[in-house]
Amino acid sequence: MAKKYVYLFREADGNNRALFGGKGANLAQMTRLGMPVPPGFTITTEACTRYYNDGRKIAPEIIDEVFATLAIVEKEAGKKFGDPENPFLVSVRSGARASMPGMMDTILNLGLTDISVEGLAKQTSNPRFAYDCYRRFIQMYSDVVIGIGKDYFNRIIDQVKEEKGVTLDTELTAEDLKELIAKFKDFYFKSQGEEFPQDPKVQLIGAIEAVFRSWDNPRANIYRAMHDIPYDWGTAVNVQSMVFGNMGDTSGTGVAFTRNPATGEKKLYGEYLMNAQGEDVVAGIRTPATIDHLKETNPQVYEEFVRIANNLETYFRDMQDMEFTIERGKLYMLQTRNGKRTAQAAIKIAVDLVKEGLCSEEEALLKIDPKQLDDLLHPQFDAKEIKKHTPIAKGLPASPGAGCGKIAFTAEEAAERAAAGEDVILVRLETSPEDIQGMNVAKAILTARGGLTSHAAVVARGMGKCCVTGCGALIIDEEAHTLTVNGKVYTSDDELSVDGSTGNVYEGRLPLTEAQISGDFSTVMSWANKYRVLKVRANADTPADAATAYNFGAEGIGLCRTEHMFFEKDRIAAVREMIVADTREQREAALAKILPMQKSDFIGIYKEMHGYPVTIRFLDPPLHEFLPQKEEDILALAAEMKIPVAKLKERIASLHEFNPMLGHRGCRLSVTFPEIAEMQTRAVIEAAIEVNKAGGNVKAEIMIPLIGEAKELKYVKSIVVNTAEAVMKELGVKVDYTVGTMIEIPRAAITADAIGAEADFFSFGTNDLTQMTFGFSRDDADKFLGDYYDKKIYEFDPFKKLDQTGVGELVKIAVQKGKSANSKIKLGICGEHGGDPSTVEFCHDIGLTYVSCSPYRVPIAILAAAQAAIKSKK
Amino acid sequence: MAKKYVYLFREADGNNRALFGGKGANLAQMTRLGMPVPPGFTITTEACTRYYNDGRKIAPEIIDEVFATLAIVEKEAGKKFGDPENPFLVSVRSGARASMPGMMDTILNLGLTDISVEGLAKQTSNPRFAYDCYRRFIQMYSDVVIGIGKDYFNRIIDQVKEEKGVTLDTELTAEDLKELIAKFKDFYFKSQGEEFPQDPKVQLIGAIEAVFRSWDNPRANIYRAMHDIPYDWGTAVNVQSMVFGNMGDTSGTGVAFTRNPATGEKKLYGEYLMNAQGEDVVAGIRTPATIDHLKETNPQVYEEFVRIANNLETYFRDMQDMEFTIERGKLYMLQTRNGKRTAQAAIKIAVDLVKEGLCSEEEALLKIDPKQLDDLLHPQFDAKEIKKHTPIAKGLPASPGAGCGKIAFTAEEAAERAAAGEDVILVRLETSPEDIQGMNVAKAILTARGGLTSHAAVVARGMGKCCVTGCGALIIDEEAHTLTVNGKVYTSDDELSVDGSTGNVYEGRLPLTEAQISGDFSTVMSWANKYRVLKVRANADTPADAATAYNFGAEGIGLCRTEHMFFEKDRIAAVREMIVADTREQREAALAKILPMQKSDFIGIYKEMHGYPVTIRFLDPPLHEFLPQKEEDILALAAEMKIPVAKLKERIASLHEFNPMLGHRGCRLSVTFPEIAEMQTRAVIEAAIEVNKAGGNVKAEIMIPLIGEAKELKYVKSIVVNTAEAVMKELGVKVDYTVGTMIEIPRAAITADAIGAEADFFSFGTNDLTQMTFGFSRDDADKFLGDYYDKKIYEFDPFKKLDQTGVGELVKIAVQKGKSANSKIKLGICGEHGGDPSTVEFCHDIGLTYVSCSPYRVPIAILAAAQAAIKSKK
Repeated sequence: MAKKYVYLFREADGNNRALFGGKGANLAQMTRLGMPVPPGFTITTEACTRYYNDGRKIAPEIIDEVFATLAIVEKEAGKKFGDPENPFLVSVRSGARASMPGMMDTILNLGLTDISVEGLAKQTSNPRFAYDCYRRFIQMYSDVVIGIGKDYFNRIIDQVKEEKGVTLDTELTAEDLKELIAKFKDFYFKSQGEEFPQDPKVQLIGAIEAVFRSWDNPRANIYRAMHDIPYDWGTAVNVQSMVFGNMGDTSGTGVAFTRNPATGEKKLYGEYLMNAQGEDVVAGIRTPATIDHLKETNPQVYEEFVRIANNLETYFRDMQDMEFTIERGKLYMLQTRNGKRTAQAAIKIAVDLVKEGLCSEEEALLKIDPKQLDDLLHPQFDAKEIKKHTPIAKGLPASPGAGCGKIAFTAEEAAERAAAGEDVILVRLETSPEDIQGMNVAKAILTARGGLTSHAAVVARGMGKCCVTGCGALIIDEEAHTLTVNGKVYTSDDELSVDGSTGNVYEGRLPLTEAQISGDFSTVMSWANKYRVLKVRANADTPADAATAYNFGAEGIGLCRTEHMFFEKDRIAAVREMIVADTREQREAALAKILPMQKSDFIGIYKEMHGYPVTIRFLDPPLHEFLPQKEEDILALAAEMKIPVAKLKERIASLHEFNPMLGHRGCRLSVTFPEIAEMQTRAVIEAAIEVNKAGGNVKAEIMIPLIGEAKELKYVKSIVVNTAEAVMKELGVKVDYTVGTMIEIPRAAITADAIGAEADFFSFGTNDLTQMTFGFSRDDADKFLGDYYDKKIYEFDPFKKLDQTGVGELVKIAVQKGKSANSKIKLGICGEHGGDPSTVEFCHDIGLTYVSCSPYRVPIAILAAAQAAIKSKK
Repeated sequence: MAKKYVYLFREADGNNRALFGGKGANLAQMTRLGMPVPPGFTITTEACTRYYNDGRKIAPEIIDEVFATLAIVEKEAGKKFGDPENPFLVSVRSGARASMPGMMDTILNLGLTDISVEGLAKQTSNPRFAYDCYRRFIQMYSDVVIGIGKDYFNRIIDQVKEEKGVTLDTELTAEDLKELIAKFKDFYFKSQGEEFPQDPKVQLIGAIEAVFRSWDNPRANIYRAMHDIPYDWGTAVNVQSMVFGNMGDTSGTGVAFTRNPATGEKKLYGEYLMNAQGEDVVAGIRTPATIDHLKETNPQVYEEFVRIANNLETYFRDMQDMEFTIERGKLYMLQTRNGKRTAQAAIKIAVDLVKEGLCSEEEALLKIDPKQLDDLLHPQFDAKEIKKHTPIAKGLPASPGAGCGKIAFTAEEAAERAAAGEDVILVRLETSPEDIQGMNVAKAILTARGGLTSHAAVVARGMGKCCVTGCGALIIDEEAHTLTVNGKVYTSDDELSVDGSTGNVYEGRLPLTEAQISGDFSTVMSWANKYRVLKVRANADTPADAATAYNFGAEGIGLCRTEHMFFEKDRIAAVREMIVADTREQREAALAKILPMQKSDFIGIYKEMHGYPVTIRFLDPPLHEFLPQKEEDILALAAEMKIPVAKLKERIASLHEFNPMLGHRGCRLSVTFPEIAEMQTRAVIEAAIEVNKAGGNVKAEIMIPLIGEAKELKYVKSIVVNTAEAVMKELGVKVDYTVGTMIEIPRAAITADAIGAEADFFSFGTNDLTQMTFGFSRDDADKFLGDYYDKKIYEFDPFKKLDQTGVGELVKIAVQKGKSANSKIKLGICGEHGGDPSTVEFCHDIGLTYVSCSPYRVPIAILAAAQAAIKSKK
């Protein structure tokens, strides 16, 4: 039997959104519920996929099926497509599996021609209405199917309105509209070299094809990329009998939500316009009335709508976003869907739905998009206030939140001025690891260069710090300490306001609202904690970050990067001394200076974690990152260190690497300089002993980075264990510590059985693992990934969402091999991916012990972990 | 039952070299064959492994087992260890699984003490002999077990000889030797603070431990690295009753080969010394006699030795290297092993053994070390002549062969002077891709920097060109065009001779001998071709390389890198024009200039391959490699290209990459600039059509590099196929072409099922695959891999020998997945590893179709492929 591509609403399976799209599935449900849905049919998403596979052509058998199904609807309606007396008109709308509001195209009033419009006029005794429909159709069809922008037609409308001396479309008479139609058709002919199509069948196929095509338009592509919607899902097409909101003053059209999508308040929320069709409501020419108004003007329709709305909410067990039309006093439901909502509303609605008994805690948890929680966790600009200001520049929204302060042009300056109590915004061309301290104290970070995965962006997200990157309009003169934007010069005395959620930069200081964790939020978190299996830890390098993580519910530190500590101003001198050392003794002398500082870092972090495990990663970056590269900085450092410039230059040259990512870093440093691992182990153990003495219960997990071979781990581990045992013997106290490794090199995943035999835990470093598995570096890939997205080779950024096909397969291999060698092995993930909900679900499914993410993403990961557990139980 | 660590020679399994080592296994065989072997026992390699696992301690139960076994041998000998009347003496020697001549330690005459030496003197009525043994023992024991260098003792000997007025050791009387012993012991006491050990059991355990320890001495480590011998094999220890060659004029000792190890000639070859012990033969103080001389002086012993030698050769079916001692006219065999031999001898012996019916062709093939063939394939310095010269410097033997010529300091200069008919040696700090042409025409390449895997080394090996890298003694002044070595200045007029097989550099021009492929060599190759399953192709980028490859037996080109063609002087201008282009049109115009050149390259290569397949890899390196980096070169290029310097600099800056290895290269270039792939496809197809017209039968295989995802291959393949079909339609002719990909990114291996569905072939690019799987780059890893070798984390260079555990596992995954998706898929390897025998064996075992290596390694790969097939049949 041939595959069926077209289904009447009453035939379609309302639970199969994959095949019928969200709109089609819900129309099917509403039809079966006996709600007043204009009849019609859905062309499946498979037809869309086939359209693309067939080289963007609709197969003849699908066209046949469309018309065969149309004939059934026509028959039932007692009208006929293109009939000069009693024409059947339809709307054609897209409907993807996931709702993509406004992303794709809609055509109304399809089926009108020069002849049938007269039939419609006669039949309805309402020529004005008929011509209004036709002019709308010509305009929409030309825009959506042919690609002639709406503006051309709007200009013609404006011209006619001016001639007629009217301001509203509704003031145009039937004759005016007839004249307008003639002008539209004339313009169409001139621009296309042919008449506006007069065959409704041609119109219909054109419209269907336009919907299919719209799946690949730039708007849709961007929306999909933002929302992780796969390209191969395709869209369904819904063809529905027209009902008319523009049939006069007893007709109208509107949209409504069952609850307030901004606050979550349980109260019908929406607006409508009488004598109008769908697009008028949003066009903003006439001001729509609120839905409450309908209660007064048309209580019967209002009551019916309220009843239907309530039924829909109960049926779908979620807040609904509905579109309706009133045709000559009769209510029709055009569509319903789970409504988009703000994070705040999502939380409140979820809690309310449970309170109202509409759904279970598990179901309620599944209704909240974990990514949205981000909005609740950072300070924001006041929403009303922000509308009054125009941004002076716009960059990439690299890390959410908002910040205000005076401009600091260097990290040092930022640090000094912040220490003096000033609020500063760090403004840089781009940031580097040396800027860490300045970034840490700034209220926001703003860079002229770099993408969403640049150093500034990654570090800022880790810090939960507002950051805008790639703001090309900034002209920064670091020497003169000036910032020029659109010709206006700003200095260190000027204030900026930076919105990391939108990428907007404003002049002056705008009012902020602090992050609110309302009672409902904590209810949701407590449910999530109840249902999740996966533990959630945070990546934190400082006691402050650790405290934030703990407060957000983290159950340990999954990644404490020790190198960030090395960059701090009072330490880098000793670090540099160590790097420039010629002998082991000199190196050890320098390391001895770092030891107490490193130890005090660990003490601070242990304390903040209150007995939860802390995974400390040993020194990872290549040593050249700690040395300056610019001539002037080198001269200054040589003078400071009292060593010959030539010697310093020689050392810098000797550390040069062609591919630093693939160079002398990670555990390779410990193989070459075991004394570094010795110092770090001593700091870990001594700090633990000290905290335990004061009543603590430290669980230290020493993590060796960049392992690629079991013998390598065995070697470094022996240094760690020997040192730890020596320190504990020296001080006469035992400490709970384990030794594990990051799995971030493909070879480590492949040989995870041998490595697992030596490791107490694996932590998947999916940032590096992604780089090496794909063979491209995060810093360099931005240059070509754009082309990859355009050409649909990759659909999402593998540095944000774990590539489950490739990288994930390696992770699975490593999990299976690691467990086979060591059944007690702890398994976690500590890459940037740890806070990505789809990755969290993957981690749950493959049986990891925990995920670790930046402190501000802990609640997101907790919710995602709960969702994963609930989904896998189903 | 406890594990047995000690076996009498007659108990041991002569076929188990892994357990008893080569020497122990062969002593067992000889014992069973009834040959005159002094009795003794072998301590297994497992005891050595246990020694290291136990923290370099011999376990008490092993010590007990040693003495229990010793007691058996003592009893049979009727002597007793340390007996004052009739002392039992032993030798202690190492014996690893693979023969490591001279790499580890031997101790003779063990068991002598102040008391037992008197017993020996009395018992043999030969005090001089007894004291000679004792003084030798003290010296050897002090050296090997205690670590007091032999020279201290030799100085004492010289002093005594001077006092006594004699020149030879044998001229010293018993009394002289007694005096010497006193002095030795005195020196020992002074340096050690204790007496020379007088307990033979302590001596024995000390000696055994010394042998175990010697497995980890630097000499042994280097030897193992050179010969791919794993560290964890360990060494066995052989304890054997002493027989004495120093018992007077009817005693002696010697070594002999059953055939000439230099030429392979079938004739006993060796030397011996009367009244001597082992070390005297090699010490060079007395000149040994040739083995022929023994025939005259002691025909009976000679006849017996010849009989034994023949029996051993027949038994072991290979040329033997034997050690023997004559004690008072009686012959003893101390050891036998398959003899080391030159490449030339190896070939001749293999062919002769088959002719003589001693072994089959398959067995004979297994006796030749494929790596050795390298020596036969390059011009060499005359072996006798070279001994007369002292090198002025020594670098790394990066690519074998020899070359003489005048010094050229730049690639351009080399190209010009070579074109003018001069022989030049290209002398550079290091080379870069721009130097290719100069490297190609030079007689040898000599660099001051870079390792065995530097650009110069890799490219030179590919070209089969003599190359020495990392020659630190060179001080090169590129501007002044001078080379200074040890204070002596050389200019462009001076000649050098470079030996790529040893790393030596000589002044002047030394005589060369051309590579000889003798009749025996071609016999061996024809056998190899008969037995191998794996096909062997070559990596070749030029018609000249293709011709060499064809002549050496290559069955196609497995890797033709097109970028080398782009670097040629007359082309790089067009390439740069393409890179600097702002629009697709400009790029296409530049590419149109490259097309005819590229086409003519392919025509040349197709012709040389006479219908064998040619795999052409599309442009691979990042574009910045084609642009200059130095200020002066940039200025010159901007002027040449008639574009503003700023524009060129901007373009260079925009191409900068943090990690070029992980950057915008390979197929990523074709995704961004499809026109490059279009041009290359056109060149491939047009060239094939032209060659076919002239009677050729081209099989073009278009290879897309750096694929990481099936959709990526699909995209690039569609460009290739569309272009190829268009060209064929245009010209009205069909061409046999296929499209495949390199598997060189871990993700490609992991997703090889999806990729395999799109590919006609996979070629494993194991260079890049190794870099990405290990997460270190070839260029940067040299800085730390030394420490890894020292610490036994890695034991071999994964860029030379494929890492079967990690990278090999990915290759296996890809083979299995690729075949599952496409049962007809062709599978090859084209990394540097393709010519490494152990990798060839791996490729055979996992079922690849072919290996591809540099033309000069084709015979090596052919032999290795045959060996792999023969071994897997067994």
